[in-house]
Amino acid sequence: MNILFIMYDQLRFDYLSCAGHSDLETPHFDRVAAKGVRFTNAYVQSPICGASRMSFYTGRYVSSHGASWNGFPLRVGEQTMGDHLRKLGMDCWLIGKTHMQADAEGMARLGLSPDSTIGARQAECGFDAWVRDDGLWGHGPDGFYDEKRSPYNEYLKTKGYEGDNPWADFANAGIEENGDMASGWMFANADKPANIREEDSETPWLTSRTIDFVEEMSKGEGSWCAHVSFIKPHWPYIVPAPYHDMFGSQHVPAANRHEVERDNPHPVLGAYQDNKIAQAFQREDVRQKVIPAYMGLIKQCDDQLGRLLDYLEETGRMDDTMIVLTSDHGDYLGDHWLGEKDLFHEAAVKIPMIVFDPRQEADTTRGTTCDALVESIDLVPTFVEAAGGTVPDHILEGRSLAPWLRGETPDWRRCAISEYDYSPTPQAVKLGLTPKECRLFMVYDGRYKMMHAEGGFRPILFDLKTDPEEFHDLAKADAHQAEIDRLYDLFAQWLRRCAQRVTKSDDEIQSGRGASLRKGILPFMVDGSEVPQEFTEKYRGPAPQRVDGD
Amino acid sequence: MNILFIMYDQLRFDYLSCAGHSDLETPHFDRVAAKGVRFTNAYVQSPICGASRMSFYTGRYVSSHGASWNGFPLRVGEQTMGDHLRKLGMDCWLIGKTHMQADAEGMARLGLSPDSTIGARQAECGFDAWVRDDGLWGHGPDGFYDEKRSPYNEYLKTKGYEGDNPWADFANAGIEENGDMASGWMFANADKPANIREEDSETPWLTSRTIDFVEEMSKGEGSWCAHVSFIKPHWPYIVPAPYHDMFGSQHVPAANRHEVERDNPHPVLGAYQDNKIAQAFQREDVRQKVIPAYMGLIKQCDDQLGRLLDYLEETGRMDDTMIVLTSDHGDYLGDHWLGEKDLFHEAAVKIPMIVFDPRQEADTTRGTTCDALVESIDLVPTFVEAAGGTVPDHILEGRSLAPWLRGETPDWRRCAISEYDYSPTPQAVKLGLTPKECRLFMVYDGRYKMMHAEGGFRPILFDLKTDPEEFHDLAKADAHQAEIDRLYDLFAQWLRRCAQRVTKSDDEIQSGRGASLRKGILPFMVDGSEVPQEFTEKYRGPAPQRVDGD
Repeated sequence: MNILFIMYDQLRFDYLSCAGHSDLETPHFDRVAAKGVRFTNAYVQSPICGASRMSFYTGRYVSSHGASWNGFPLRVGEQTMGDHLRKLGMDCWLIGKTHMQADAEGMARLGLSPDSTIGARQAECGFDAWVRDDGLWGHGPDGFYDEKRSPYNEYLKTKGYEGDNPWADFANAGIEENGDMASGWMFANADKPANIREEDSETPWLTSRTIDFVEEMSKGEGSWCAHVSFIKPHWPYIVPAPYHDMFGSQHVPAANRHEVERDNPHPVLGAYQDNKIAQAFQREDVRQKVIPAYMGLIKQCDDQLGRLLDYLEETGRMDDTMIVLTSDHGDYLGDHWLGEKDLFHEAAVKIPMIVFDPRQEADTTRGTTCDALVESIDLVPTFVEAAGGTVPDHILEGRSLAPWLRGETPDWRRCAISEYDYSPTPQAVKLGLTPKECRLFMVYDGRYKMMHAEGGFRPILFDLKTDPEEFHDLAKADAHQAEIDRLYDLFAQWLRRCAQRVTKSDDEIQSGRGASLRKGILPFMVDGSEVPQEFTEKYRGPAPQRVDGD
Repeated sequence: MNILFIMYDQLRFDYLSCAGHSDLETPHFDRVAAKGVRFTNAYVQSPICGASRMSFYTGRYVSSHGASWNGFPLRVGEQTMGDHLRKLGMDCWLIGKTHMQADAEGMARLGLSPDSTIGARQAECGFDAWVRDDGLWGHGPDGFYDEKRSPYNEYLKTKGYEGDNPWADFANAGIEENGDMASGWMFANADKPANIREEDSETPWLTSRTIDFVEEMSKGEGSWCAHVSFIKPHWPYIVPAPYHDMFGSQHVPAANRHEVERDNPHPVLGAYQDNKIAQAFQREDVRQKVIPAYMGLIKQCDDQLGRLLDYLEETGRMDDTMIVLTSDHGDYLGDHWLGEKDLFHEAAVKIPMIVFDPRQEADTTRGTTCDALVESIDLVPTFVEAAGGTVPDHILEGRSLAPWLRGETPDWRRCAISEYDYSPTPQAVKLGLTPKECRLFMVYDGRYKMMHAEGGFRPILFDLKTDPEEFHDLAKADAHQAEIDRLYDLFAQWLRRCAQRVTKSDDEIQSGRGASLRKGILPFMVDGSEVPQEFTEKYRGPAPQRVDGD
C-alpha cells in the first residue's frame, strides 16, 4: 500500500461542503469522505504552522519535540515519519511545504553535512524531497524570509514570469486600475484576480508535481508515502481568475463573535483581540474582501484534488493508496474578534481529517463520520500500521486510527491537548512576559475546553455543549471550579506522560528483566545460596595468586 | 581555571566526619569542606547510577533526557557537559566511570561511527576518555555485564594478577580459610581483606591515573575539566587490608527503621521492603559485615583524596582548580528496612556536595555550609559559569551555584525533584505494572517530602521537621490533604517547565521579534499603510507582464 498524506495550509474544518458549509461546494473533498471516514473532532497539537507540522511529522506533542514556533529548529536526531516508515521498507517523500527549520548548530555538532543523504533528511524533517517549496517567498529589507531555493519561482521563470520573485509579483499580486502591482499582502486587493494564468498558480503546479511523482513511482515496485503539502488557502489571500469572483459578500457568513467576548477578556485573549491582524478582521470590509478569496482558494484546491483523484482512478492507484486530507490549523477570519490562528477556539484548533483506506477491512466505515477525539499525532502511528509495522509507543505519542477505520470502538484518550508558544509575538511584549511564560495549553474533553496559561494568569473555560460558539468564558466566575479542577487533573496526567525515554521500548524493558543477573551482577547475595550456581560459578574455586610483581 | 569534578559511587551524605559521622574520620573530605562550601541539602535527580549520572552530565532532569535507568541509552545528540564546556574553550575529560550507554541505534541512524572523534564523544557521554572504566566487571552465564575493555583489568594483568577477570578474582574477592576464593559479591565475605595489594586496588589506581592526568595537562596551556569518577564505595563490599578491619561492630549504627514502616506500607515501598536486597539488609549479621567494609572503602577514598590534594598543593594546582566532591546517590544499608538505593528517603536521595572555588570571590564562604535545596543538575551551570560562559538555560535545567559560593542569597527553587523508573525490576513484576506505570517522583520543599507514584497509587508524605527519620507516612491518613495539594501544585508547575525547546534560546527569541516582518512577511495589512514603506516597497511599482509562454 501507498500513502498520500495531503495537507492544506490554514484550511478551516468547516469550509467544506461535507462538513456542512452551505455556500462552498467541495465535491472532491466530499468524494474522499464518501469513500472513507471523516473525523469530526480532529485537533492540531499547536495552532501555528511550524509547531503543528513538527507534531504531524514526529507523532509527538510540541513540548516533546520542542520546536514550538515557526523557525524554531527541530533538534537533530528527533525521529520523524520518514525514520519510522523507511525502517518498514516504505519510502517517504515530500512534495511541497513542511515549515521545517533544520537544526544547523546540532548538525554541525554531530558533523552532519546537509549534502549527505542523512544530512539532507535531517534538514528536510526526515523526508526525501521530491519538491520542497515552503511557499512563502516573502522579501523585505532583510532579504528573503526563506533562504532556500524556490522550485515554484524557478517554474514561474521558465513560464515567462520574470524578475527576482515572480511568486510575489505575479502569483500573489493583482493589478491596480492604474497598472500598478496590487500586492496580495494587502487585504484591499483580495478581490482582484492574481496576475497569473490559473494553471501556473501554486495549487495546480503542486498537483502536477504530485501526478508526476505518482507516475514515476508507479514504474517501480516499492511502496511509498508522499506528503503532498499545499501552501493554500493560507495567506496571501489572492487567487487567479475564475476563482477570484466565484464568491461574493452574499457568501460571507456573519462573524462568530459576541460582545461578551470583549467584556473583561482573559489578558492573553485581550492582547490577541488588540493585535494588528485581529483589528483588520474586526473590520467588515476586510472580511468581505478576504473570505470570498479564501473560499476561491479552497474551491481551486478542490478542483485540483478532483484532477488528482481522477488520475488515481484512471491508473488504478485508488486501489492501493491510502489518502488523508487534513490541514495544519484553521483561520479565525474575524470570529471571536480575531484573525489568523494562534488560540484554541474551534476555528483555529480543529482541522478537517478525512481518511480513505482502500483495504477491505475498512469497507464497513466508508462514508461515515467518527467523533472520537483525534489528534494530528495519530497519523504517524496510522501510517506505521498501514506500512505493516508495530507502533513504537515509547517514541510516538499518537495512536493509530486503524481501529476506527475498521469500525471498532477502541478505548481512547479522554482529552485532546494543544499547545501554543507565543513568546516571539507582540502579544508577549505587550503582556511583559519572559519567553518561558508565554505558553498556553488546551485541555478539551469533548465538552469542556480549558486553556491554561503560564505567566500567572487564570484559565479560560468553555462548555461546548451549552455554548458551542465558545462565547462565554466560564472561568470569569467562580461557579465552575469543579470542572476546572477535573481538567487540571487530566492536564497533570498528560504532563506526567513518559515522553523522552525514546531509546528503550516497553517490550525491551520487559524482556530485559533479570539480564544483569545473567551477566554476573549479584548485589544481593548473603552467601551465594540465593541464586542458582550457574550465576555464581565464575566466582568460585581456589583463590588465585599474583604470579610476579614489581 | 580548571575543574576537578570528583564523584564517589553510592557514597551516603552522612558517612563523612564533616557531615557529622561520629565514627568515621574523613579528614581530607573535611579539608576540602574547610576551603569551600558544603551543601547540606543536595539531591540527586534519580537514586540510581545511570539515570542520576545522565542528569549530572546533561544538567537536565531525568524525564527531560529520558535515560531513566541503568543501560537505557542517552539519546544521540543530547547535549552534555562536554558540549557546553568545549564551546567555551575548556576540554572535558573522563577518568573512571559514567554508566553511559551509547545510543547505538541513533548513532547508526545518523551515520556516526564510534571511531570518529564526534562518535566517540557521543558514545562516552560527551567526554574525551582519559581512562574509561565503569568498574563493574560482572561475569555470568551471558558473559560480561560491560562489553567494553577494562583498563583496570588490564592494569591488574600487568601487575601479575592473572586470569580473565582479575577484577573479580582479586580486587573483589578475599580468601576462605580453605584457600577457596571468597567472592565479594557475597555479604558473608565483606569482612575479609580483598586478595590484592592495597596500592593495586581500584581507588588508588584511579587516583594515580588522575595525578598522571593533571601532570600531563599542566604541561599545556589550556584549561580543562576532569570528571574523576570512582566506583567505590559502591558494592561489591570488600576492601583490601588494612581497611578491612579498621571498623567493627562497635561502629555500626543502629538501623534507622521503625516497625510503623512495615505496618500497611505504600504498595511500592512494601514491594521494595520485600525484595532480596532489603531482606538481606534486614538481617543484622549482614549489616555487621557490610557496614564496616563500606566504612573501610570510604576511609580508603579519603586517604587517596588526601594524596591527590597533597599533589595539587605541591604543584600549585589548588590555586587554579575548582574541586567538587559528590556522589551519584546514597545507600540504605538497612535503613527503612531497605538495601541499595532506588527510593527517596534521605539515605538514598541526598548526597554529599562540597565545592571548593579557588577564586577570591569565594573567600567569604570558605568553611561554611549552605542549606539551599541544591540539585545535581546545578553542577553543569556552575561549571559553565566557571569556564566564563553564560548558562544556556533553554537547555540546562539546573542553576549555577556561583552566587552561593560568593555568599549571595539568590532567589532559589522552591522544591527539589527526583525521579525513579523501576520498570525493569522485580518490584514492577510483583505489582503487575506496565513499564510506563513504574515511575516515581519526589517533590521536597525543604520540610515536606512527597512521593507521587504513577500506576494509580496514593502518594507518600513525610514531614522532616517533626519526623526527620522519615518513619511516619502522613498520607496514610486524611489529615494532610492541604500539604499534599500544595506539593502537587509545585509538582505540576515543575511538570509544565519548558524542557525541550533546546534549539532556541530565550535571548534569540527576544531579539528575533519582528524579524519575519523585516523579511517581507506582511500578513496583517489592509492597504499597506500599517507598516513603514521600506517593508512594502518590494511589492509596489508597475505590475509586471509575462514575457512569453507556452
